[in-house]
Amino acid sequence: MMHSDEQQDPSYILVAFGKHLAHIRKDHGWSQEKLALESGIARSYLSGVERGQRNIALLNIYRLATTLGIRPEELLKF
Amino acid sequence: MMHSDEQQDPSYILVAFGKHLAHIRKDHGWSQEKLALESGIARSYLSGVERGQRNIALLNIYRLATTLGIRPEELLKF
Repeated sequence: MMHSDEQQDPSYILVAFGKHLAHIRKDHGWSQEKLALESGIARSYLSGVERGQRNIALLNIYRLATTLGIRPEELLKF
Repeated sequence: MMHSDEQQDPSYILVAFGKHLAHIRKDHGWSQEKLALESGIARSYLSGVERGQRNIALLNIYRLATTLGIRPEELLKF
């Protein structure tokens, strides 16, 4: 087993990103459905991202950030 | 045609990311081949990312940042 910071379990990263995104979304007072509708991203996909089950790509990270009115790098600060 | 900041051509985002990544890599004095070898990401894939032809996903953004010794959000500041 590996425990160093340099060898993080990749699934941990996706879960941490998803929790961070959900936190920002709730801070905006938005439901998952509203963020999905406003961003044009399917709600089922968004739900998977927030649960850390999707390896979201750059263009969708950008789309979510733009929709939430924040800088894309803010979504990676977790 | 749309010219507002909110409706950026997605390909522009990928090109900007690729140029930013290449800039950081060169600042480290690393060749594409070295970054590919150190990160475990195929050189052909990395080349496509730097040319804005790949919609890189979160885990690979993380992998590149970790390999370069920078915070992942630094890769999105372009």
